Amino acid sequence: MEPISLHILGCGSAKPTLRHLPSAQILELRGKYYMIDCGEGVQTTMQKSALSMLKVGHIFISHNHGDHVFGLPGLISTMALLGRTAQLHIHGPQELEEFLNIVLKVYCEGIDYEVLFHPVRTREHYLIYEDRSTEVWSIPLEHRVPCAGFLFREKQPLPHIRREMIEAFNIPVSQINNIKAGASWTTEDGTFIPHERLTTPAAPARSYAYCSDTRYAPKVAEMVKGVNLLYHEATFPHEMLLQAKKTMHTTAHEAALVAKEANVGKLIIGHYSARIKDEESMLKEAKSVFTNVILAQEGLKIDII
Amino acid sequence: MEPISLHILGCGSAKPTLRHLPSAQILELRGKYYMIDCGEGVQTTMQKSALSMLKVGHIFISHNHGDHVFGLPGLISTMALLGRTAQLHIHGPQELEEFLNIVLKVYCEGIDYEVLFHPVRTREHYLIYEDRSTEVWSIPLEHRVPCAGFLFREKQPLPHIRREMIEAFNIPVSQINNIKAGASWTTEDGTFIPHERLTTPAAPARSYAYCSDTRYAPKVAEMVKGVNLLYHEATFPHEMLLQAKKTMHTTAHEAALVAKEANVGKLIIGHYSARIKDEESMLKEAKSVFTNVILAQEGLKIDII
Repeated sequence: MEPISLHILGCGSAKPTLRHLPSAQILELRGKYYMIDCGEGVQTTMQKSALSMLKVGHIFISHNHGDHVFGLPGLISTMALLGRTAQLHIHGPQELEEFLNIVLKVYCEGIDYEVLFHPVRTREHYLIYEDRSTEVWSIPLEHRVPCAGFLFREKQPLPHIRREMIEAFNIPVSQINNIKAGASWTTEDGTFIPHERLTTPAAPARSYAYCSDTRYAPKVAEMVKGVNLLYHEATFPHEMLLQAKKTMHTTAHEAALVAKEANVGKLIIGHYSARIKDEESMLKEAKSVFTNVILAQEGLKIDII
Repeated sequence: MEPISLHILGCGSAKPTLRHLPSAQILELRGKYYMIDCGEGVQTTMQKSALSMLKVGHIFISHNHGDHVFGLPGLISTMALLGRTAQLHIHGPQELEEFLNIVLKVYCEGIDYEVLFHPVRTREHYLIYEDRSTEVWSIPLEHRVPCAGFLFREKQPLPHIRREMIEAFNIPVSQINNIKAGASWTTEDGTFIPHERLTTPAAPARSYAYCSDTRYAPKVAEMVKGVNLLYHEATFPHEMLLQAKKTMHTTAHEAALVAKEANVGKLIIGHYSARIKDEESMLKEAKSVFTNVILAQEGLKIDII
C-alpha cells in the first residue's frame, strides 16, 4: 500500500523569519492532496516540493489568523491561471468567510471553477468531511479565536482475497466483492468456508492529526488517541511557559505530554516562535517526555507506512 | 550625496515560478523607503535584503491585480507585530480599498498604527505625493484594469555654500540659509557678490520611473523623459507580440523603444511571463534598440548616483 505522506510547507508562527514560513501542509493520501492551513508563500514551497496545486481538492483552515490564511488569495488565483475547472472546497471557521468572499469577488471574477466554503464548528469533535477513502474530524482547540485541528483517518481498507482459495472452492467471480465486504462461502456440498479463510486482512487504517494553534489542552489526547502521526504546535520551550500561557500556545514539553498520553506513533512539533533560535533544544525537551519526536522543517516529507 | 537605491523584491508576473516572485520594489531615497507594488512573499525578500519593514512609510500600488497586492495583508500584520506606531500610507487605485478595508477589519483589529488609503486617479498625470525631498507623480498606463505607474523625482537639492567666500566677505551665519535658497550678498562697502560666486551647484536632482503593467504606450515616454532609471515591464519577447497585445502587456523591444524615445539613463526590464525561460534573449532584443538596459532579478540593488 502506498504511504500517506505529510509535506511540511511552513512551520513558523506569525512573525516571519528567514528560517521558517507561516503554517501550511499537504497530506497526500491515495493520490489526493488535502491542504491544511495556507500561510503566505505556500505556492513557492509547493513548487519546490513538486506538488501540483491542481491536485488540491480540499483545504482545511484551523483558524482565521493571517499566518494561517494569507496564502489563500494567491493560491486561488493561481489555480484559475493554471486552468482549474474542478471545485475547490475550503473548510474553516465561519470567521474566514468574509475575507474569502471579498477575495473571490474582487480578484476572481469569471474564473472557471467554483470555490465552496464549508464552515467548521470549532467547538465540536465531529466528522466534517468524508470521501471513499478518508474521514476528516474536527478537533476543538483552545486559542485566542475559534480554532479546530483536524484528524485524518483512512477508512479501513477491505481485506485481500486469497486467490488460491477462490480456485480451490470454485467460487464465482461475481461473489468476490461480497467476500471482500465480509461474506463467507458455502460450497455445493454444503461445506462452510469462513470469511477469514478466504481473505487476508488489509494493513490497518492509518491516521494523522494536526493540532495548531492551541494552548496545552490535555483533553486533545483523547481525540487523537493512537494516531500514527501527530503534528502538535510547540511555539515555545517550556522555560517560556508564561509567554505560552499568555498567547495561548503550547510548549515543547506540553506537546510531548499530549503525544505520550495519546500514545501516538510519532510526534512532529512546529509553529516555532520567531524568538526561538535553538530548535534542537526544544527537540531535546520534548524527547525527555516522549521518545519518537522530530522537528518540522519546510520541505520535509514524512511517510506513514 | 547618498545614492538612490532601487531594490527589486519581485519581478515575475501573475503565474508563479521558482525563478521569480510577483511584483514588488523598494526605492530607498534619503533614508526613506518607498514601496512600489506588494506581491506575495515580499516580507521574505525584504528580510533577505536586510530591509526593515518599519522604514516603509508609503506604499504605491499600480493596479488591483493579485500579483501586485497579495503581499499587503501579511506586511500590514507583520508591521503591527513589530510594534509599528507610525502611520502607513497606501496609494493606489480606488478598486483596492474594499480588499484593504476587509484586511484591516478582520485581521488588524486593535493594531497600534493607522493605515491611510489615498486613491490614485489612474488616468491623470499629476503630483500624488510630496515630502521635503521627493515628489511622486502618477503615470497613466494602459492595462486591463485601471493602472498607473509612478515617477519619483528628487527635489533639486540646494547649492553648497563656499565656506571660503563666507569668510572672505564676513557674511553672518544668519544669512547662510538665504544664500543657499538663492540670495546674493552686498558687502558693507557696497560690493555686490552674486549668488553663483558664493555657492557651488548641488548635484542635479535624480529620478526613477516605474511602468508596470501596460501595453506599449508611446505617450509614456513624454512623462518619463530623461529619468535616470526606468523600470518598464517586458512581459514577453517581441515574437509573442500577439500575446502581449491580447493581455495588454509590453514586449522587450517595445520597452526599449520607450526608453530610447524618453532618452532615459538606464532601462531595467522585468515582469517576465512564466512562459519565458530565456531572459537573456529578451535582454539582447532590448539592447538592439537601446544600449543601457539590464534584467531585473530578485535581490538586485541598483544605485542611482
